[in-house]
Amino acid sequence: MRLIDEAALDDITLGSTIFGAGGGGDPYIGKLLARDAIRRFGPVPLVDVEEVPDDARVVFIAGMGAPGVLAEKLPRAAEYDRVLRELEAHTGEKYDYVCPAEAGGLNAVTPFATAAVVGVPVIDADGMGRAFPHLEMVTPTLYGGKATPLVMVDEHGNNMLLTCEDNAWVERIARAAVVTSGANTTLALYPMSGAEAKAWLVRGVLSAAAEVGRAIREARAEHRSAVQAVLDSQNGILLFEGKVEHVERRNEGGWTIGRAELAGLGADKGNEMVVHFQNENLMAERNGRIIATSPDLIMAMELDSGEPIPAEEIRYGFRVAVIGLPCDPHWRTPEGLELAGPRRFGYDVDFTPVEEFVR
Amino acid sequence: MRLIDEAALDDITLGSTIFGAGGGGDPYIGKLLARDAIRRFGPVPLVDVEEVPDDARVVFIAGMGAPGVLAEKLPRAAEYDRVLRELEAHTGEKYDYVCPAEAGGLNAVTPFATAAVVGVPVIDADGMGRAFPHLEMVTPTLYGGKATPLVMVDEHGNNMLLTCEDNAWVERIARAAVVTSGANTTLALYPMSGAEAKAWLVRGVLSAAAEVGRAIREARAEHRSAVQAVLDSQNGILLFEGKVEHVERRNEGGWTIGRAELAGLGADKGNEMVVHFQNENLMAERNGRIIATSPDLIMAMELDSGEPIPAEEIRYGFRVAVIGLPCDPHWRTPEGLELAGPRRFGYDVDFTPVEEFVR
Repeated sequence: MRLIDEAALDDITLGSTIFGAGGGGDPYIGKLLARDAIRRFGPVPLVDVEEVPDDARVVFIAGMGAPGVLAEKLPRAAEYDRVLRELEAHTGEKYDYVCPAEAGGLNAVTPFATAAVVGVPVIDADGMGRAFPHLEMVTPTLYGGKATPLVMVDEHGNNMLLTCEDNAWVERIARAAVVTSGANTTLALYPMSGAEAKAWLVRGVLSAAAEVGRAIREARAEHRSAVQAVLDSQNGILLFEGKVEHVERRNEGGWTIGRAELAGLGADKGNEMVVHFQNENLMAERNGRIIATSPDLIMAMELDSGEPIPAEEIRYGFRVAVIGLPCDPHWRTPEGLELAGPRRFGYDVDFTPVEEFVR
Repeated sequence: MRLIDEAALDDITLGSTIFGAGGGGDPYIGKLLARDAIRRFGPVPLVDVEEVPDDARVVFIAGMGAPGVLAEKLPRAAEYDRVLRELEAHTGEKYDYVCPAEAGGLNAVTPFATAAVVGVPVIDADGMGRAFPHLEMVTPTLYGGKATPLVMVDEHGNNMLLTCEDNAWVERIARAAVVTSGANTTLALYPMSGAEAKAWLVRGVLSAAAEVGRAIREARAEHRSAVQAVLDSQNGILLFEGKVEHVERRNEGGWTIGRAELAGLGADKGNEMVVHFQNENLMAERNGRIIATSPDLIMAMELDSGEPIPAEEIRYGFRVAVIGLPCDPHWRTPEGLELAGPRRFGYDVDFTPVEEFVR
């Protein structure tokens, strides 16, 4: 166990932008929420999943919506408290631990807001090891875990409790409600036991985010390349260096969907890259050839500053490095690839690990 | 109290088609459900609201969706049982009586399916005295009644519990879920006390539907005009006789929206009428002049057979009488007109009672 204070939160926030793989919502918003809660209620214990008793009750806390809308409407800390209280009222169970559904972006840090207010620890684990655009795309789904009972609350005071047999139905119904509510909602979902958390979750992902954040921070302080620091920290691959020439982006069905087209710089001069995204970056083509796909992580970082650039913010003129990071091994199983591999997003290609593409 | 058997159900079903005002879903589907339940569990007691104890618990049972889709996918009786069990499980309350949210169309008779299976009486009252396209358009809303806690279930086994402060938000969120689920869901909503039911509901509406149904049935048996029988029974007004020349109809946002254009016959020869609908018929224009609007009832009946023609089924070549029936006095108050008057549906006109338009 270690305590997460404001400084530790800063590193996790920065690192989670990389694990957001272009999506996951602006972690800065999540940090403001969590920082405010930590200031009021004190640092939050972060525990390894091995420390969690088998019979403990664990639940994911997450925001859901289009990142662009989340950025415009700051979620309120009250909702991160209320969502857990509502779930407890409906299930009659007390939840002992919270953790992120996805440790990428906003949702990596929002559980700290719940944890600080309610007074429970955060588990150093998540259900993705990154961010994904669908709420059924979590490791518990691979093992038969249920997204429901799920509570969703919004800024208008509306509360929804769902129970569904099929996690994909939960995604559809919750997404429809998110769009209706104004694309800004807070969820408590995937209630599970401590034993299930140990068997199902991606371990150590918040520590890893903190490590990436620290690597970027130190590289910047020492005028080293933040891109290289991230690659070194996470066994990442440099996929491309280029200038953004064109971006298409639209809000559709509660998602931010589009593509960014890059013209090569430096060693990549004369080559081109297209990065396709649906909230997250899902596929990268170099000169028309696919060289990285979900579930591996694809992320853009500004070349000079090392600033991670979400799909929501990438625009003409940015000079970026596009990097690929290997996903958690859960996702490279046949079940994992069926749930979150390239075909799941409509790309007619088999998954190849990003490190093999480059070889 | 009287017992509703299969024959009584037939009259209510037929009459409710008139009270559907062109919408409310095909009551034949509701009848099949309710008849099956009555055959298995016996006739259902229908009680006057005055017989209901003040401290009894009462709840509306309703289907929600686009009528066209409801007609294609027969709801299952199991869902009419399950929806009440779910609400009871979540609220910890036992419901002593059910009644229709709207006594027009499908939803006039589906509460009998719940009642037969669960073993509770149906109250001879509803929240509209007709059908309306929005779930907040019920008389309880006029008096501060809350639509939630509301349970919605669908054919896929998904269950949703909503709690919202604002009934209009309930409509938006539930409608989004309905569209996602395939436009075919079952709801238990507006839990209220017996005292509230007495103060809020439109009384005697199922008896009135049975009376209209009987009037049509007897007129047909005696080769009299079924149209005239309905007008006599309900103080109705004949608005137009004509042949349907053109129909525009589309499914949009979970509703069936469009217009029917008629060319006059008989005394109306040389004149024209346009009936506008959003699930229900909401406005009728004669030669470009509005002569009937919501909340009064506008309904088409086939001239020869007296068959009520819903907006979903009206089509080129039908020879119809368009009739207007005065709505319940609840709706002619300033609050009632604000909630369900012509401006609420985008028609820039003050409400005039249909009987005054004609004078």
